[in-house]
Amino acid sequence: MPDAFEVNPWEVKGLVDYERLVTQFGTQKIDEPLHRKLLSYGKAPAALRRKFWYSHRDLNFALQEFDRKQGFFLYTGRAPSGPMHIGHILPFTLAKWFQDVFGVNLYIEIPDDEKFFAKQGLSLEQIDQWVKDDILDIIAVGFDPNKTFIFQDREFIKQMYTPACRIAKRINGNLAKAVFGFNDGTNIGHLFYPALQIVPCFFEKKRCVIPAAIDQDPYWRIARDLAGGFGFPKPAQIHSKFVVPLTGMEGKMSSSEAHHAILLSDSPAEVKEKVTKHAFSGGRTTLAEHRKLGGNPDVDVAFQWLQAFLEEDDAVVKKLYADYKSGKLLSGEMKQVLIDKLNGFLGRHQKARAQAAKLVDKFKYSGKLAKRMWDFSDMANR
Amino acid sequence: MPDAFEVNPWEVKGLVDYERLVTQFGTQKIDEPLHRKLLSYGKAPAALRRKFWYSHRDLNFALQEFDRKQGFFLYTGRAPSGPMHIGHILPFTLAKWFQDVFGVNLYIEIPDDEKFFAKQGLSLEQIDQWVKDDILDIIAVGFDPNKTFIFQDREFIKQMYTPACRIAKRINGNLAKAVFGFNDGTNIGHLFYPALQIVPCFFEKKRCVIPAAIDQDPYWRIARDLAGGFGFPKPAQIHSKFVVPLTGMEGKMSSSEAHHAILLSDSPAEVKEKVTKHAFSGGRTTLAEHRKLGGNPDVDVAFQWLQAFLEEDDAVVKKLYADYKSGKLLSGEMKQVLIDKLNGFLGRHQKARAQAAKLVDKFKYSGKLAKRMWDFSDMANR
Repeated sequence: MPDAFEVNPWEVKGLVDYERLVTQFGTQKIDEPLHRKLLSYGKAPAALRRKFWYSHRDLNFALQEFDRKQGFFLYTGRAPSGPMHIGHILPFTLAKWFQDVFGVNLYIEIPDDEKFFAKQGLSLEQIDQWVKDDILDIIAVGFDPNKTFIFQDREFIKQMYTPACRIAKRINGNLAKAVFGFNDGTNIGHLFYPALQIVPCFFEKKRCVIPAAIDQDPYWRIARDLAGGFGFPKPAQIHSKFVVPLTGMEGKMSSSEAHHAILLSDSPAEVKEKVTKHAFSGGRTTLAEHRKLGGNPDVDVAFQWLQAFLEEDDAVVKKLYADYKSGKLLSGEMKQVLIDKLNGFLGRHQKARAQAAKLVDKFKYSGKLAKRMWDFSDMANR
Repeated sequence: MPDAFEVNPWEVKGLVDYERLVTQFGTQKIDEPLHRKLLSYGKAPAALRRKFWYSHRDLNFALQEFDRKQGFFLYTGRAPSGPMHIGHILPFTLAKWFQDVFGVNLYIEIPDDEKFFAKQGLSLEQIDQWVKDDILDIIAVGFDPNKTFIFQDREFIKQMYTPACRIAKRINGNLAKAVFGFNDGTNIGHLFYPALQIVPCFFEKKRCVIPAAIDQDPYWRIARDLAGGFGFPKPAQIHSKFVVPLTGMEGKMSSSEAHHAILLSDSPAEVKEKVTKHAFSGGRTTLAEHRKLGGNPDVDVAFQWLQAFLEEDDAVVKKLYADYKSGKLLSGEMKQVLIDKLNGFLGRHQKARAQAAKLVDKFKYSGKLAKRMWDFSDMANR
């Protein structure tokens, strides 16, 4: 039987079987003891508590090393090629929690080269516009500007290229094809790019912890294979599920279908219209039927989003679930709950974003960590 | 019939048929009118006068553009991985002539990444040592420090990476395999590297003229294909033959077989020993036979080197040829002429090299052209 779903760094198709993905990718589920341990460090966001972040590699080691005062550091990123949607912000939200709770450094890569290589019609000039937008959205999350470094590949390449050479020498065409699905039609920029995504795993001689959706795992597999040879610990990951599109439970949200995604820049009216029109509902076809038989929260996108990451209050989620299932709560009402939550979140985000421009310099150049990183020369010297 | 020789950017094997190579590579021979025109600009070195530099692409256009006051610029380079031999210096000697006569800028790339990718056991640390050595040898040639910029890929990568991205996007794996003989075992650094070798072809919006041995031609073929799309003239080349090893007329001199090569650092005693012991001679087996039947200057390496680039005086070369052929000049005597010429050249070179250290800063950073180039951001802005 062929897979009913497909997950790779560029595409998520079908109804993802997350249990099976863990087996396929060879990662580990976040089990109860690890989950409890994680939550013991500080009040965690809903997405972590409710296991939207559900899989990992060596995260337990990172926590042990933290407990032993060896520490760790965080690394995540965002490849600019269009507007950011609410799914894109989740790794950053989790990274903020990790930074707040563990007090660790965070490195945020903005690969302003990757999508240029990957997308035929996309120009560097277009990407550079998205870079500016995306950095403001990222800063709006509220990181510590002295412990967070935001860097663009093309701007920071002098510091990255020598370690990238060391990494690139150990990845041949065969491996790149097998891991990333490249072929002989892939351009040589794209072929080289994985080296640049791996470099930050070795920015500090501690364990790197990477929050990212599970489709990015292939990059870190190679990084983990190389780490030992460079004298570094294997980078750890924490993997999220995908935010499903408004239209239903298959695939993942994509900015290129903007009416199926909630963008970070959406106005309350846009949110209302998108959710009302497009959110796939688990309700019955008639009001009478719904009241009598109840809805299905397990396929209702509004409920799924609320549960996965938007509604912090567990009791509220529980009640929404029960009331929807019993037929007490209607689909339109569930959508309204989502609209209010989204607009609350986006309102706060957009307000923070409006203040972000004046912080760009700190995150990129003049903050404590940023300043130190501009002197970074080569992981071989660390 | 299989080729009796083979030429690609990494290997030269067999007795090279230079006429055929021109056809194979699709370059043009420097014909009499072009040769006369070239020599009309100023007294040329023996290697140019005697057509050791024998092939080209669009060099006639570059001269026409110079005549029309549009100018051109020079670009050559040296990939460090071992000591430089006298063959390595010839593109620089020719570049100096071009710079002196035409007053143009010269860009010298030191790819301190290429051989790291290409050679299994070679470390960046070893390369960095050779870089320092090679730069001194190059400076010893005597370029204008305000019109010459020497740059290392890993140090200058910030300025090169964005244009390299534009180039890399247009070269896919298939093309790289076909042109450079890469395969799926080639590492992704090496696969990307051609983009970096092509970037300097577009450092100025004039025609680029590249003096290099003909085996480097594949790089420039791709550069020429891309130039139009970027709004630049196709880079022109002038191609040399290879300096044959001391041991005979096949292949090319290689530093990795140091006893078959004259290194720029060789002492007079080393030169004497190498030439005496290893230089393949066109002489007869006995003195009597040689006197009677004469030697063969066409396979005598000592004579070949003198003729190709070491003896500036045409009359002397003519006499050496005639005297050797007639048997009047013995092989030992021919070797002695070579030894004296080599030691004269190396003595001057080594003296200039001893003064070169204090000029490094000018060529790399503080000279007029160097200073301007550190502000170079992207060929798209030129």
